[in-house]
Formats: sequence, structure tokens, C-alpha cells
Amino acid sequence: MNHGTLPTIDDFKVAFRTNDVGQEMHQLIAELYPLCRSITGHGLRETLNIIQRSIPLCMHEVPTGTQAFDWTVPKEWNIREAYIANAHGERIVDFKRSNLHVVGYSVPVQRTMALSELRQHVFTLPEHPDWIPWRTSYYQEGWGFCLSHRQLLELRDDEYEVCIDASLEDGHLTYGEYFLEGEQADEVLISCHACHPSLCNDNLSGIALVTLLAKYLTTLSHRYSYRFLFIPVTIGSIVWLSLNESRVSHIKHGLTVACVGDPGKSTYKKSRRGNAEIDQAIGLVLRHSSGDYEVTEFSPYGYDERQFCSPGFDLPMGCLMRTPYGRFPEYHTSADNLDFVQPPYLADSFAKVWSTLYVLENNRIYVNQNPKCEPQLGRRGLYRAIGGQAHAEVNELAMLWVLNLSDGQYSLVDIAERSGLGFDAIKKAADVLLEHDLLKERLH
Amino acid sequence: MNHGTLPTIDDFKVAFRTNDVGQEMHQLIAELYPLCRSITGHGLRETLNIIQRSIPLCMHEVPTGTQAFDWTVPKEWNIREAYIANAHGERIVDFKRSNLHVVGYSVPVQRTMALSELRQHVFTLPEHPDWIPWRTSYYQEGWGFCLSHRQLLELRDDEYEVCIDASLEDGHLTYGEYFLEGEQADEVLISCHACHPSLCNDNLSGIALVTLLAKYLTTLSHRYSYRFLFIPVTIGSIVWLSLNESRVSHIKHGLTVACVGDPGKSTYKKSRRGNAEIDQAIGLVLRHSSGDYEVTEFSPYGYDERQFCSPGFDLPMGCLMRTPYGRFPEYHTSADNLDFVQPPYLADSFAKVWSTLYVLENNRIYVNQNPKCEPQLGRRGLYRAIGGQAHAEVNELAMLWVLNLSDGQYSLVDIAERSGLGFDAIKKAADVLLEHDLLKERLH
Amino acid sequence: MNHGTLPTIDDFKVAFRTNDVGQEMHQLIAELYPLCRSITGHGLRETLNIIQRSIPLCMHEVPTGTQAFDWTVPKEWNIREAYIANAHGERIVDFKRSNLHVVGYSVPVQRTMALSELRQHVFTLPEHPDWIPWRTSYYQEGWGFCLSHRQLLELRDDEYEVCIDASLEDGHLTYGEYFLEGEQADEVLISCHACHPSLCNDNLSGIALVTLLAKYLTTLSHRYSYRFLFIPVTIGSIVWLSLNESRVSHIKHGLTVACVGDPGKSTYKKSRRGNAEIDQAIGLVLRHSSGDYEVTEFSPYGYDERQFCSPGFDLPMGCLMRTPYGRFPEYHTSADNLDFVQPPYLADSFAKVWSTLYVLENNRIYVNQNPKCEPQLGRRGLYRAIGGQAHAEVNELAMLWVLNLSDGQYSLVDIAERSGLGFDAIKKAADVLLEHDLLKERLH
Repeated sequence: MNHGTLPTIDDFKVAFRTNDVGQEMHQLIAELYPLCRSITGHGLRETLNIIQRSIPLCMHEVPTGTQAFDWTVPKEWNIREAYIANAHGERIVDFKRSNLHVVGYSVPVQRTMALSELRQHVFTLPEHPDWIPWRTSYYQEGWGFCLSHRQLLELRDDEYEVCIDASLEDGHLTYGEYFLEGEQADEVLISCHACHPSLCNDNLSGIALVTLLAKYLTTLSHRYSYRFLFIPVTIGSIVWLSLNESRVSHIKHGLTVACVGDPGKSTYKKSRRGNAEIDQAIGLVLRHSSGDYEVTEFSPYGYDERQFCSPGFDLPMGCLMRTPYGRFPEYHTSADNLDFVQPPYLADSFAKVWSTLYVLENNRIYVNQNPKCEPQLGRRGLYRAIGGQAHAEVNELAMLWVLNLSDGQYSLVDIAERSGLGFDAIKKAADVLLEHDLLKERLH
Repeated sequence: MNHGTLPTIDDFKVAFRTNDVGQEMHQLIAELYPLCRSITGHGLRETLNIIQRSIPLCMHEVPTGTQAFDWTVPKEWNIREAYIANAHGERIVDFKRSNLHVVGYSVPVQRTMALSELRQHVFTLPEHPDWIPWRTSYYQEGWGFCLSHRQLLELRDDEYEVCIDASLEDGHLTYGEYFLEGEQADEVLISCHACHPSLCNDNLSGIALVTLLAKYLTTLSHRYSYRFLFIPVTIGSIVWLSLNESRVSHIKHGLTVACVGDPGKSTYKKSRRGNAEIDQAIGLVLRHSSGDYEVTEFSPYGYDERQFCSPGFDLPMGCLMRTPYGRFPEYHTSADNLDFVQPPYLADSFAKVWSTLYVLENNRIYVNQNPKCEPQLGRRGLYRAIGGQAHAEVNELAMLWVLNLSDGQYSLVDIAERSGLGFDAIKKAADVLLEHDLLKERLH
Repeated sequence: MNHGTLPTIDDFKVAFRTNDVGQEMHQLIAELYPLCRSITGHGLRETLNIIQRSIPLCMHEVPTGTQAFDWTVPKEWNIREAYIANAHGERIVDFKRSNLHVVGYSVPVQRTMALSELRQHVFTLPEHPDWIPWRTSYYQEGWGFCLSHRQLLELRDDEYEVCIDASLEDGHLTYGEYFLEGEQADEVLISCHACHPSLCNDNLSGIALVTLLAKYLTTLSHRYSYRFLFIPVTIGSIVWLSLNESRVSHIKHGLTVACVGDPGKSTYKKSRRGNAEIDQAIGLVLRHSSGDYEVTEFSPYGYDERQFCSPGFDLPMGCLMRTPYGRFPEYHTSADNLDFVQPPYLADSFAKVWSTLYVLENNRIYVNQNPKCEPQLGRRGLYRAIGGQAHAEVNELAMLWVLNLSDGQYSLVDIAERSGLGFDAIKKAADVLLEHDLLKERLH
């Protein structure tokens, strides 16, 4: 099934006969939610297996100890069981109830200890006494439990049996990659991290968006090649970059997607360059979407854009979120659950990414073939017949802008920015002018 | 009679012993008001004939069918009589009462028809029931009448005699041009459109301003050559550009003038370049004039600046208006009449254009002949004798700015912009410094 | 005694065991206050002699008549006595009570005259009837008295004995210079004017700041060489520049200091260049200091930055003040006295200049030695062990910024500006990264 070139997001529903992409995303999130993901291990593999049902994901397994620039692939971590039991043998904290209970990458433990010792390994959130925090200790061996603060307060001075049945051994780091060939070798790189356990906004929302984006794009023809990465955060992008250094020059635009299901406004964090085409494109989409949004400058703290935008690569890669990392109280807690992400917000984020790809796919630099004065649009049926009316039709104005700025320097995105008109109006105007041989694409 | 170089607008009245240039403009508008102008034809010719009484206008007649870039000079349209008569033979709509009643470029009609058919050829403004709209159909043959909405409502279901005694035949497109030679071949191009019928602000105000500007400039010596164009909108500038392509490189500054008599604030629309010297000059004049004003970015919709700023020419040409096209309700209606334009507003617009020419004429790049430290102004009588007072005189400050920035890069206009001082203060300071050999003009 | 490299202002007190630099400044001001300084003469010499107790100032004596660009060193002015006595021989105005009473550079007078004649030589401030204004007549011979307006009103129609026992003769222009050699020949130039009589904010506050700055810097090692100038305003900087033209290329940063003791907010006037490193450095210091401040664009009116920023030199030299010249009512009056300048404001100004030098001394361009992806900071103990917490420590963020932007283009000052973090945080991060061989200084 090939649906042809990218439809606008307004035509998306019709093109794919899909009712609610937000609902579809939420279902995938719900399916992935129970798995105990980490930066390595079976939870991550199972996650990628489930994604493979939607898209032909290629699984990569990189052995422990592999060098990746300044980093080394760590040991693989797997966990089977973990609990804290009281003197009566009651499991008062159990990994089965929430995989956030165990600090990620905890080494195996099987001991009895007094509350005072146990306390040193326990993390809680006093300001949110019912929430379980999420903590990890990837690069320094240790162990710990995360509890709701209420649970901690209920612990009496007693002996506790502490069990973490986990393994931390040589193995592999797993990541998923899907390369979708386009007409050109030039690539758009879209990445999400897939290493957080039962956390919906900060992880699963991004995974769901990228999965469905890849799924729908697969059926269409497109100019750019697309590369989708599902990777453990930081170490995953570093490993990918170290293995693919020679391919990096193909990446013309890039986007990291995370935290796209909460009710907050959309937030786009620009690439390190600050004026890349992806920065322009998302800027246009956000400006012409309904609802509030924010565009922030690049900062080297965040998700994998940190690595893609390191000075040795400096890729044109931004990050689309709703509420950014660390700015919502539910962040990295058990409250970032299936209720926190909602289909309408997921669908809205999907639409914004889709529209951004639509802009990138359709952006061109044209050269006006009648640069001296305006061409006579009326003769070609492109201009209202009765003059003297106060307001020109918007599409007439869009045509005039495209003609005026198509001097070989301005792209359609540049024209949309300078005119203040939406990209779609500009593109439609350019299409009509092309049909009438009034424009020609600039040869590079 | 030669009055010498351009006086400032403050000295204008004295120099020309003229009492009220706004009144003079309004009289010319009143004289031109009744004529039925169009983009060709006798009304346009008569208009130019009347202007010839003030300035030695050169009339150009370009034959129907002449190619001008993508356009062709249309047939010439002339109209003698037009009316709608009811069954009693009463002329209920008559071209004699308002030349707006007939759609411009209407083909001849002489028929009797039912109201239902007539209605299809009638334009009104329901939101302004007493006003007659103005409509044209230059490039698509047709005919029509414009009525006040109240007139339309009064029409009963009847048979009507419809007569448009017009001709649409091979002939000429007429435009007026006045070239005023200056010391240099470099030109300032000033254009207005002269193709609208009985409409005062959107047409006649611009014609009056340009005519009187040309008239007064003629008696003065000036650095630049000036070219004044009175042309039918769009086709006129296209024809002129196609006939004068080789001269275009002489145009250093340009201005289109329209809608300069209404009570709204002055609005300047920048050239496509956005930072041309004309943009700077008018910006300075507006900033240092009393009263509110607006400077807007270039847009390819408007008057003839659309053609002059097309990418193949990209001339440094802006457009000065008061309320812009389409933003006042009277626009293109019978309410844009002799009451709508007032002498004080006309005079104010004239003053702003005059002051802009004053800036352009006097703008220079000088080189400070004592670039190392300040020269001793006091020794030359240019600095207050008693030190220690809190505030320097403005002209001292202006001298210091001119000396400090005259490094061969900054023009006087640049210095006025950076200092925040008015052009006149900067120019006077430069004049004094020149007299004392402290500056020298930069040789190009 | 060598204290090593520049401490931050926070470490300053400890480093120098000094309790209150503002008090120390105020004491010096109080000692210098009674002297009758002018642009030449004994008062200026005595002032420099007192400064010599703190720093090894070099005294320069430039003969009357020496050419300095467009200027000539004037005659030397000295005054012994001056008064106005009434018919009873009572000295109703006496130079002994305030050296502002005599117009600076007054020629000798010894006459009896009517009030009407005397009035023509008297200056007062009617709007501040108790204050004595300060006036000078350096470059035009004359004489005069400055009185409080109340004194003037009390003068009855009488004969007055007027005596100014002054000399205006060939002599010298005196200035003080202290060159403090650093590791490099590149210089920081710090100047203040020392030619105003009993005026505290506009003169003595700058002298005190520069003196103590030089005193404390002397004991430290520093990268830059420092040149401190104590000069008569205008003629002093012109003479210095004319005598030192060949050295000017060594000046990498410069600062004029004046009016730094009043209660107003700090004001920095940028160099003519507007984006010099000194402009950036002071901007950072002010932004990260507590309290309000203002940064203004360069203007060619002010203190000696006028000469240093003349187009033939265009040195990167700004001016630090609190309330600028002419903006406080006490300016150039007897109310600019010892009460008007206060130790806390003096100390605050000192701290800002010190911090600026700290920035300049420590600004470097580094190159990230692991430009591809982030280096693994955790392995080096530079990153928190437990992941998943909401907020990174500021110093982690500073390290990430330094690593991300150290591509050989950004200096630490540039990084502080782009990141919004303080210079100190950025410098400390860079130091830690340097220790771990993650950065290398860029070779020019």
C-alpha cells in the first residue's frame, strides 16, 4: 500500500482512514507500561520486540566493554524479583507491584538488616508522600529501593529481609534502528529514548510517537530518507554515533522526541546552531498551530540532543516536548502514569511532528522565471477578475510573496517566515506558480 | 527664478512665499476630481494636461498591444454616457452624477432587461448603504454598475433600460513623466498612480503631492536628478520599467506616494531591501516629526512599489501613505471624496516628503581630519567658554557625534540614527566643522 | 608580599585582611578633599604626591606650549588667595572657606568695583540657594567668583574689594602614571581624572578607586600589564595619547572610572565598539551582582573615554560610574562633598571593577578535547552518582556548557553570556575540566 507523498495533517485522517492516532499511541503506551526497561537488558529487548509489530525495526546488540568515544558499554542488568519483607515475612515492598521500587542497576542483595541500615538505601519524596520516585545508579555499583514516603513512615524498628534478585554481567546494550529509504540519501534522524521503566510521559510517549510516525511514513513516498532510533539515553546515542560516524554527514535535520503526552503547552528546544532549517520548520508549525507554545534556546542539558549537538558533531537537531524534563512534578515518579498522558495531547504532538516533516519534505528554493515586475496572474486565471476590492485573497498574497522572494536565496520556509503566512499557504501558492511555469526549482 | 539649494521645510514657506501648500494641493485635487480617469483614455490624458500647467510634463503614448515583460498594453477605454432608466424613462442611475457608477473598462451595452438580470451586474456596499463602491474589470471583458445599497433596495421588479456608451478599442496607454536634471546622473524616482476616477485620497492626494513637489523643486539646484512619474497603476510601472530598463541603474532612491490626505497617522512601507538609504531617511524624518507614525516592513501587495521592488529590479523604493490601502472604510468608495482629504494632512505629508529629500540631498560621508582625540573646538569658538555646566548644548553634542563617527564608514544619516539626534542638527554640525576644515568629504 | 593570582572579590577580604575597602577609599577622599586641584598647578601635584604614598606613581611634567595633536599645553595656574571684601573690609567671600568660590583659571584681579560690575563675574545656582557652583575658564582668559545664591542675595549696593591672587604663567601640565608589568605586554588601561577641586563624587571617588585598585593589584601576579593614569580631564588624555601613540596597540581593554561613590545604581557606558571584551566583562559582572544597574551605549560626551574612543584610536574603553555626569543635582557643586560619597557605595564600585579585572584575567578560549559526545564525567567523579533527580547541580550544567561551546570560537566570557550563568561558575567548571585534561587552551 503506497499512499503517495505526505498528506498535510488535515488530510492525514482521510489518507489513513484512522480515527484517532492519540488513542492508538495511548494503547501502545499501555502495552509497554508494565515492562521494566533499563539502559540494557530484557525489558528493553521486549519493548523493541513489541515495536517491531508496527515497524520493521533492526535490533542491534553491542557487547559489554565496547568503547564508544570516552565511554564503555556497561554490563547488562536484569532483574527477576525484589522485595522488602518484615519480620512476619510479609512483602511490604514488592518489585511486582511497581518496577520503580528498585533503583535501576542495583547489584544483587539477599540479607536481613535493621531499619537503620535499610534506611540508607531508601529514596522517597516527602513532598509527594504517595508517589514513588525513580532512581538509577548506572555507572556506580550500589543498590537501593524507592518507596512512597508514606510507606517509609510506616516502617517500624524491626529486622527486614531485603532481596534483589538481579544480575549485572557481561552482555549487550540493545538498541532499535529503522532506516526508511527515501528518494535522496539525505536523512532526517528521529530519536527517542527507550530506557525508562514504568514512566509514561518521559519515555513511552516519545516511543509511541516515533513508532506511529515511522509506521505511517513507511507507506508513503518521501524525498528524505528517515532514520528512527529507539535507544537508551546518553550511552545509546553515544554508541550509535561512534558506530555511525561516517554516516553523520547525511543527517540534514534531526529531532529528539520526549515528554509529548502531558497537558502542558508544546516546547521546542532549538538545535545548538539555533537557526537550522529544523528550527525554522518547527517554529513555523508551532506559530500556526492553535494553542500556546514555547521555543527555547539550546542548552546542553536534556536528552540525546546533548550528544548529537556536541561540538564535534553539531547536528541540526532539536528536541520537541510538551512540559520539559524536570518541570512537571510527576517527572521521574510513579505519578507519570497512564492517566498523566492523554490521547488528545499525544495526537497534538504527533500532528506537530507530522506537520514539521511536511514542511521539511516540501521546502524548496525556487527561482521566479519572470523576475522583472509581476507576471500577469489574471491572464492565467490566478487573480480575481474584479479589481478595487479592499482585501486580496490570502492565496493571491501568498503568490505575490513567493514571486517576490524567489530570487534563488529564499526557501519556501524563509518566505513563510518573512511573510508571516503559514507554510501550507506558501507551498500551495508555489505549486500553482510551478504549474504555470512561473517558477523553477533552483539547481544546487 | 532659482531659489538655490533645498531649504528645510521650516524655511520652505519663506523661500517660496507660499502660504499653505496643503490648500494648494487641495485646489488641484478639486480640479481633477470630476474627471473619469482609468488606466487608459481621455480622463487620464486630461488629468496630465492639467498637471502640465504646473510642471513641464512629458506625455508618453504607448500603443495597444505593446509587450511589456509578461504584460500587453490593453485596449484604450473611453466612456461618453451611461445610465439605468426605469420603465418610465427616468434615469435612476446616471454616470453624470458619479463616474464611480460604471465599472471601469465596461464594454458597451444598450439593452432592456429584467431586474433579475440587472442585479447580476450591480455592485453595492450593504455595510455602507449610502456609499457607491468602485470596481474595475481591466483584464476580463464585462460590464457593470456600482450603486449605493439604498439605490439597489429601491429598485422594483421592473424592466430597465441599461446603457453604457463606451468604447474599448485599440489606442494608447498614456503616462506622464518629468525628468528634472540635477548635478548628478544619480536619480530619485518619485511615482504616483493617476488612474482612479473620482477618488481623492487613493489617487488625487498622491498626484497633488508629486505635482507640487516637482513644481517647487524645479526652481532649486539639487544634487540628484529627479524623475516624476504619473502612471496608471501596475501596467504603468511595468510599461515604464520595460521601456527604461537601461536607466534603472541610475535610480538611487525611490518613493511611491499615495493616500496622503486622510487624517490617519503617516505610514511608511519599507523597500524590499529594508535598510536602504530611503528607508533610513524617512525613518529619521518620521521619528523627529511631531505626531504618531508607523513604519511597516515591505510586503508585495500595494501600489507600484510592487513592480519596482520585484526581484529582477529590487529598487530601493518605499511607499509613503497616511492610512494604507484597504485600511480606511472610505477606500475605493464614493466616500473618498473632497471632504475626506484635508489641507493640514496634505501639507503634513508634503512636509515629510520634502524633509526626506532634504535628508537625501544633504547626506554625505565625511572623514574627520583630526581623528586622534577631539580637535580643540573652543579655540575655534565652537565650544562654550565656561566649563563645569551640567548640560552641553545640543549642537556641541552633534559636533562631537559627527567628529567621533566620521571615520569614512558612517554617513550623516547613520550618525543621526546612532546618536538619536535629528538629521538637521547633525547636518548643521557637519557644516560648521567643514567650514573649519575639520571634515573632508570621502571620495568614493 | 605576593598574594598570587587575583582572588575573587569574595576572597578579597581574606586575601588582604582588609576590613572595609570603602572606608579606606573614603579616608583617601577626605585627605584629598581640601586641595585646590586644577588641570595644572600645585594642587594637582600635591594630590599625586599623596597618591604616591600608596603606589609608586611616576610624575610627568609636560611644559606649557607643548603640542598634543590639535591642542597646546596651557599655562600653569596657581592660586594663593582670593576674596571679596565689603566696604568694612569684611571678607564676605573667601577662597579659604571653599576653593569652589573662584572660577578655575581666573586671571589675577585686585580692584574695587561696584556691585553691578561684580555681578557680571558671579555665578550662582538659584534653584539650590545654599550650594556653590563650580565653574572654570581654562581656554579663555577671564575671572569670576562662585557664590551660593543666598550670598548673592545678601550683597547690598556697595563698593567691593575683589582680590584673586593667582598666577597664570608658563609652567607644566602634571600627570601621574603607574605601569604595573604583568606576564604579558598586553595592557589594561585604567584612567581617572584628577583635576577637580573639592568635589568628591566627580573626581575623588575615581581617584580613590584607581589608587586602591593599583595598590592591591601590585601585590599579585597577573597576566595583563596594567597602566593607571591620574590625569587632568581632556588635555591630560590628549597629552598622554600624543606622547604614547606607539604604545596604544598594547591596550587590549580600558576603563575610565568616575562618580563611583554616590547612592545611585551602577552605570556602565560602553566603548565606541560596543561589543568589546571589556563591554562583555562588565556586562556579566553587573548582571550577576545584586542591585539594579544600567548599561548605556557609547556617546562622545563624557570623560576621557571621549579621547580614547576617538576614531583615530577607537580603543576598547568604557566608563564605569554610578549616577552619570550631570544627572545628579549635586554635580559640580559644593554639595558633592564628603557626605555625598559613602563607603558602601565606594566599596561596591571597587568590587565591580575588581570582578571585571578578575573576568579579564581569567578569560580564555579552550578547546574541548573530546568534542564528539560528552566525556563520561561520572567516571571522573564529576557527575552525581544517582540518576533520575530533577535538577542538575549548577556546576554540572556549567561543565556541560563549557564542554559544548569550547569549539575554539567561544571564550569563557562568551560561554557565560550564552549560558546565562555567572563567569565564576563557568571559570570553575573550566578549571575542573582542565585538571582532567578535558580542555586545552587554544593557541592563537
